[in-house]
Amino acid sequence: MALTIDASLLHTQLAELARLGADPTGGRTRVAFTPADQAGRDQLCAWMRDLDLQVQVDAIGNIFATMPGSDASLAPLMIGSHIDTVINAGAYDGCYGVLAGLAVIRAWRVAGVQPVRGLVVAAFSNEEGVRYQPDMMGSLVHAGGLDIATALATPDTDGVALGDAVAAIGYAGTLPVGSIRPAAYIELHIEQGPILELEQVDIGAVTHVQGISWQRLTVHGHANHAGTTPMHLRHDAGMALMQVLTALQAVVLTHPQARLTVGTMAFVPNAINVIPQRAVCTVDVRDPDDAVLTALEQHLDRLCREVEQHHGVRVESERLARFAPVPFDDALVTEIATVAERRGHRVKRMVSGAGHDAQMMARMAPSAMIFVPSRAGISHHPDEYTAPDQLIAGAHVLLDVASAYCHAEYEG
Amino acid sequence: MALTIDASLLHTQLAELARLGADPTGGRTRVAFTPADQAGRDQLCAWMRDLDLQVQVDAIGNIFATMPGSDASLAPLMIGSHIDTVINAGAYDGCYGVLAGLAVIRAWRVAGVQPVRGLVVAAFSNEEGVRYQPDMMGSLVHAGGLDIATALATPDTDGVALGDAVAAIGYAGTLPVGSIRPAAYIELHIEQGPILELEQVDIGAVTHVQGISWQRLTVHGHANHAGTTPMHLRHDAGMALMQVLTALQAVVLTHPQARLTVGTMAFVPNAINVIPQRAVCTVDVRDPDDAVLTALEQHLDRLCREVEQHHGVRVESERLARFAPVPFDDALVTEIATVAERRGHRVKRMVSGAGHDAQMMARMAPSAMIFVPSRAGISHHPDEYTAPDQLIAGAHVLLDVASAYCHAEYEG
Repeated sequence: MALTIDASLLHTQLAELARLGADPTGGRTRVAFTPADQAGRDQLCAWMRDLDLQVQVDAIGNIFATMPGSDASLAPLMIGSHIDTVINAGAYDGCYGVLAGLAVIRAWRVAGVQPVRGLVVAAFSNEEGVRYQPDMMGSLVHAGGLDIATALATPDTDGVALGDAVAAIGYAGTLPVGSIRPAAYIELHIEQGPILELEQVDIGAVTHVQGISWQRLTVHGHANHAGTTPMHLRHDAGMALMQVLTALQAVVLTHPQARLTVGTMAFVPNAINVIPQRAVCTVDVRDPDDAVLTALEQHLDRLCREVEQHHGVRVESERLARFAPVPFDDALVTEIATVAERRGHRVKRMVSGAGHDAQMMARMAPSAMIFVPSRAGISHHPDEYTAPDQLIAGAHVLLDVASAYCHAEYEG
Repeated sequence: MALTIDASLLHTQLAELARLGADPTGGRTRVAFTPADQAGRDQLCAWMRDLDLQVQVDAIGNIFATMPGSDASLAPLMIGSHIDTVINAGAYDGCYGVLAGLAVIRAWRVAGVQPVRGLVVAAFSNEEGVRYQPDMMGSLVHAGGLDIATALATPDTDGVALGDAVAAIGYAGTLPVGSIRPAAYIELHIEQGPILELEQVDIGAVTHVQGISWQRLTVHGHANHAGTTPMHLRHDAGMALMQVLTALQAVVLTHPQARLTVGTMAFVPNAINVIPQRAVCTVDVRDPDDAVLTALEQHLDRLCREVEQHHGVRVESERLARFAPVPFDDALVTEIATVAERRGHRVKRMVSGAGHDAQMMARMAPSAMIFVPSRAGISHHPDEYTAPDQLIAGAHVLLDVASAYCHAEYEG
């Protein structure tokens, strides 16, 4: 008898967790360190204890549920993700990866299998970064990328320190931060993009998280009368900015994996017949290759200098975020692809467009991710959807990878 | 002895009028049909009566001060402009043209000159269109372009009808609307643009008011995750709109007199990592040649259709305003240039970039405008400035044109 995921229970737990913090519009909101997050955590910990796992919580509220292996000298495998949400979120996102981790342990328990290597299921705090920035904060702290004192002192917009917020929901734990150092880290997640669905692929074996460069550009020009100012005497901040951005877009399109998003834009004074004196936008550039990302940033700089010359404006750029691409562990990625193909799935090696706890854990241990399709690429929205059989297929790939890694194969 | 403008009194009256409705920031606000506008009107009418002029007011509050000519069979010359202001305005704008009209009559009175043709100085209501739209409303009504009943029924944003507002300040007069039909109309105005100053020219002889086309463009795309959506699967409303606008700009620059201003811009949802689902802007295109203006509008339409094809978006356009260019009377323009050169000024035949009452009066009578320099092209702002000698130079050109037209030359 092969090891098998209890599909019905996984669906039930996903649905029960999705009801906590429910919004009137069909979504749910469990922003990190709020009462709704507490309710989600309480439910999760109850399910962990139902599986006789040892539940430990650290100072930032990261939750770790451990099933020890028979060989205590081996560092455990960690399966993780998060259960905090954005505002008006979908049902799956991080919850899927955490609950699928419990489903792996349940499969072992049901089959009476004892792994040689231990398994830890982690639910990291504040992956979404809604109330406290940066996002992926719990895993960043765990992996040593942000010291705990700084993290706990982080204020929200009302000035409430994160440390007070985590204490208020009862999840300021005593486990020393970063003390669980896994041998490897695996995260199962919905793609949050359209590629798997469009290419009719069941499983993504994620090779990288792409690098991200966020900048804010502010062009300073001169306001003037739209009717009386000849074109050659203008210092039009808006037009200068649009020329930078359309030129950057043309270059981005020559890099097959690069992505450019200008999500925000504002003109000042924003009047129909006044030449904009100031134009501000954000620029989000991504690529899995750091050299390409750096080249695009440099190209953007050159374009800014060119419009300064050409339009007599001044362009300020402010770096808002910069994450280098994160390559995942090649052996783990290959293992994921292999077990998925063995189960008869179409597999695609692919880049993750979104950020995940796995990219933080990659600082600490060999890491990789498994993706399942997201209908129409929608996520962070109540319409987020992955078909039940696709969810279970992903959990079985996770089960196979974990079972092999922990030597928990059923030997009956 | 030549006729001469009383420079000191003209400066004094400009300064006194500029103090009515003064703002704490150094500007003044006399929005049409407000108590501050009433104060300005009361002062203006007092000065008109000081010159023994017959003051008449029509139903929309247009003020006409008449000095009759010796030949009552001749239709009068009209000199006009407006004394209402934008919010936080400069000191000159329309006030200069009205008070210079009174200065012409004062020059005649001082010299004991009796014109053969009468002269009417007009102060038109609500040129600025701040509280009630459209702008240039008083002159539009006078010239027959808008019926008085419709004008009086126009609501402000609080629902107050214009007719009630004009009555409340005591300027709902009894003169039948449009009853004063001048033989010609002259308006003296600051340029409100940078050209005269930059080219070191004293007097502009205005040949046209350029045509104006205002549209609102709304691009409908799809919101999606900035990280997970490949470029070829995007329907990026913001990028599509920026491509339309930069392409339009390139075409506008091939027409030497055309002007393009994108003054307002908004992205929805306006989040750094979300592809804009909607992008909205205004497009202000101007040209003195209606054929060019129409061609540019057609080109914009084609660009919209192209991005619809190329980006899979939908572009809506809404016409907000469309005024054909207004050519002024060639004989009057030539007369203005001739008398200005005779006074030793450098003269430029030029296009008005802004709208003026003269373009409405051109429907009713041969019309033209005289421009004087605006420092740095600034207007509609407390920093609006024209040097005292430039103001007086313009008034003398007005005096010469009016004296010739009304046969009021000093014959001593």
